[in-house]
Amino acid sequence: MSEHPRRRGRRNRSADADVDKIVQPTARINPYNLASVEQEQQIHDMSMRILEEAGIAFYDDEAEARLRAAGVAVDDDQIARFDREMIDELIALAPSEFTHTARNPDRSVIIGGDNVAFAPVAGPPFVHDIDGGRREATLDDLTNFVKLAYLSPHLHVSGTEIVVPGDVPFHERALDIGYTHYKYSDKPTMGHYPIGKCAADSVELARIVFGPERVASEHVLLGVINVSSPRRLDDRMLGVVHEYAKANQALVITPFILAGAMGPAAILGTVAQANAEALATIAYAQLVNPGTPCIYGPFLAVVDLQSGAPVFGASESVLAQFLVSQMSRRYELPFRAAGQYVTSKVPDMQAGYESAMSMFPSMLAKPNFVLHAAGWMESGLTTSYEKFVLDLELSGVYLRFLQGVSWDDDEWAIDSLLSVPPGGHHLGTEHTMGRFRTAFHRTDHLDYNSFEQWKFNGSVWSDRRANHAWKEMLERYEMPPLDDTIDEALLDYMARRRPELDPTDFQ
Amino acid sequence: MSEHPRRRGRRNRSADADVDKIVQPTARINPYNLASVEQEQQIHDMSMRILEEAGIAFYDDEAEARLRAAGVAVDDDQIARFDREMIDELIALAPSEFTHTARNPDRSVIIGGDNVAFAPVAGPPFVHDIDGGRREATLDDLTNFVKLAYLSPHLHVSGTEIVVPGDVPFHERALDIGYTHYKYSDKPTMGHYPIGKCAADSVELARIVFGPERVASEHVLLGVINVSSPRRLDDRMLGVVHEYAKANQALVITPFILAGAMGPAAILGTVAQANAEALATIAYAQLVNPGTPCIYGPFLAVVDLQSGAPVFGASESVLAQFLVSQMSRRYELPFRAAGQYVTSKVPDMQAGYESAMSMFPSMLAKPNFVLHAAGWMESGLTTSYEKFVLDLELSGVYLRFLQGVSWDDDEWAIDSLLSVPPGGHHLGTEHTMGRFRTAFHRTDHLDYNSFEQWKFNGSVWSDRRANHAWKEMLERYEMPPLDDTIDEALLDYMARRRPELDPTDFQ
Repeated sequence: MSEHPRRRGRRNRSADADVDKIVQPTARINPYNLASVEQEQQIHDMSMRILEEAGIAFYDDEAEARLRAAGVAVDDDQIARFDREMIDELIALAPSEFTHTARNPDRSVIIGGDNVAFAPVAGPPFVHDIDGGRREATLDDLTNFVKLAYLSPHLHVSGTEIVVPGDVPFHERALDIGYTHYKYSDKPTMGHYPIGKCAADSVELARIVFGPERVASEHVLLGVINVSSPRRLDDRMLGVVHEYAKANQALVITPFILAGAMGPAAILGTVAQANAEALATIAYAQLVNPGTPCIYGPFLAVVDLQSGAPVFGASESVLAQFLVSQMSRRYELPFRAAGQYVTSKVPDMQAGYESAMSMFPSMLAKPNFVLHAAGWMESGLTTSYEKFVLDLELSGVYLRFLQGVSWDDDEWAIDSLLSVPPGGHHLGTEHTMGRFRTAFHRTDHLDYNSFEQWKFNGSVWSDRRANHAWKEMLERYEMPPLDDTIDEALLDYMARRRPELDPTDFQ
Repeated sequence: MSEHPRRRGRRNRSADADVDKIVQPTARINPYNLASVEQEQQIHDMSMRILEEAGIAFYDDEAEARLRAAGVAVDDDQIARFDREMIDELIALAPSEFTHTARNPDRSVIIGGDNVAFAPVAGPPFVHDIDGGRREATLDDLTNFVKLAYLSPHLHVSGTEIVVPGDVPFHERALDIGYTHYKYSDKPTMGHYPIGKCAADSVELARIVFGPERVASEHVLLGVINVSSPRRLDDRMLGVVHEYAKANQALVITPFILAGAMGPAAILGTVAQANAEALATIAYAQLVNPGTPCIYGPFLAVVDLQSGAPVFGASESVLAQFLVSQMSRRYELPFRAAGQYVTSKVPDMQAGYESAMSMFPSMLAKPNFVLHAAGWMESGLTTSYEKFVLDLELSGVYLRFLQGVSWDDDEWAIDSLLSVPPGGHHLGTEHTMGRFRTAFHRTDHLDYNSFEQWKFNGSVWSDRRANHAWKEMLERYEMPPLDDTIDEALLDYMARRRPELDPTDFQ
């Protein structure tokens, strides 16, 4: 290839986005590279071998036809074998950075480059609070979590099913989930995308909010495509790729692999497989619509091989993520990093360890997008009200970490260093007084009091403080303005659409 | 300097240590470098400027005389100003790796290079368990924790005051602390070293256990020297330097700085100060006895500038540690990294977050020695029985992480990758079956059960599981053999020594 196509599609920021207005954190530290350049090449080569020799199944007729038309070898079992040059050319069409547009333009975020965006947990059918324990989640719970996510400066994307609203029929959920986010938040939203029909409804709602022209030219939705590892995309996931990509919306390409089950019980093999699956899916999305933004984001955990249970926050997952994050930089694709994953069933000390052990390493993996940054509990089956609040605290700490060290003169405090006498202190220096509010990041619900003060305050454990905090947040929540015309149009569409929807189409 | 002295004193492993027998983890991953080479040089230059212009106070007459004799400029306020060439020459005498000898030679550890050793918390006057809450610690508690540390494969050094035995008078503690470690553990011990007289008694006990000849040629004790930041060593700490260094014992040089109080409210200034203080102290130890092993280990945390409270696990501390760890590699000195520090008063979710946020980054900072790897609670004022056990679990996870990724053929699982069909699974493959016990690290007290199984088991939070675990560990503890002659000699010495000790000498 004399002219590498990589440079063509890159940096296609949305025309309308005023990036100067975007208040969004950036990562100012270098990422950690676990592999050498040669080892990185070995991973790439192994992934290419998987794509060329073993292939990826595309269980969908439209996909099969499109792949064949593009010259990909698809066998009778709908397994596509790509050659590496085609993969190279296609993934180069995916932008390395794009804007995820919010209905409030000040809240749009850039995904890619040095930019970072955090989103809350997605997908749990259960909800937990320490007052009542665990129960099935409802639309009221989803509304609560959209409000909590809206209030936090540390979440930049409103998300999707922060909990699954179990009281809404499956086939109507795209309507209620979409409306709840647009109504109670003005941050960028992701839509609802378990199957193509839901994704299509999500696009329709977006057209009402943004107008069809803007949806055609901007990226206002972001859908997660879970490759069914090993090496399989089914018609449900491909349906979502089709709806979102054709509508110019963005995708997160996430092979979900528990090493030892959907991948080998080995770190390198799992990484090579995940990389192959991600690249094939991103390549396919470019065939559907060249330039479709795709976040590269394998989700790698391990199974406890003696019980079969998934384990989050394991050291093997952390090592595997460092490798895939390095691959994302090789391909110049935005990277989705691990969030605050835990296996614990309650907001206890295990949950705290696992959460930090899962997410802190992501900060050294050059994260562009972090889904599940708050609320994830019980291997993703439950959203915890208390953990949501405490995870937000830690998200703030992580975002401060990503700022790195300022190398300004003021950060040396040279006058203080030379003038404070031995055994003296810096509490009252001019330098300290000048920055005592800003020098160090503060949290709200982590307790730094003395034991005596903590005891005086009631000896409250962090889960109980968090219980108080989320209730206080919901009390002070104020809805961001939403144009009445849009609100009514959304409600009209939903009312008109509900009777049209046939539950059997969604099975 | 035509012949750099650095190469002379290095690698002075103890003559007797059979390193082949040492079962000790190593770090096989590269450390993370936060600063560029130029930035690293800037930190070095600023530290040298502090040493040359502002100086370090040595409040001790013996130290003053020794410094003057060596040609260091000491002013009337006992502030020593070093020139950078002398610092360079002296720190080059400190070995980059040494053996910390245990009474059981199989348990000796190498400190430095790629080797890693974890030790339990040191210094808390209080103890906490969830049955009875917080109370003053006793010798029985210390005995319990020495037993727990002995039982754990993830602690390699037995430590010192895992709790302060408050029921033993201060001036007798070196005897009881030393005896408790030698009696109930055969791992390397650190002695008791708040002042020189205690350190001297620790050396005497070691001479009984190892014989005077071995103590003269091996390093069987390891004392922590806390520089009283800013820029001050008092007669208590210098007394310990004198006793340990003259007796050929090893030191951990730890400027303890809460940025904003004992250092400026700035990361770079705090790092430059800590580096200056550590280097001056290491240089001074070489004047006392050239070749004295010194672990380079600043302890950096921040104060909450609005309440004055210390904060552990802050992102600023993590950034600062990445910088000092980089400096330790520049000077080719063993590095002491942060342990599982928390401000939380109880083993709750905050404690889990803070613990991981403090210690996981240490794993990327090339840790050679990690003090406070288990049990630390309440800003170091309390040792928690439950957190001790849970911290051990995480220590195991961290040690696995340090092993990195094997780049062997078997780690690619190439046959499985190519032969498991799309949508199949790897649970039953030959590759998985061959390694299902070893592929992934397992923990004992982190719960990976399903919600239903967890509920069936009693819905137990992690602190309650840990409560059960430490009691079970104490029940199954079996004392390692200790030669009767040594045991009696230790008891004789203690009985003889107690009446000699004058409490007023220890004030």
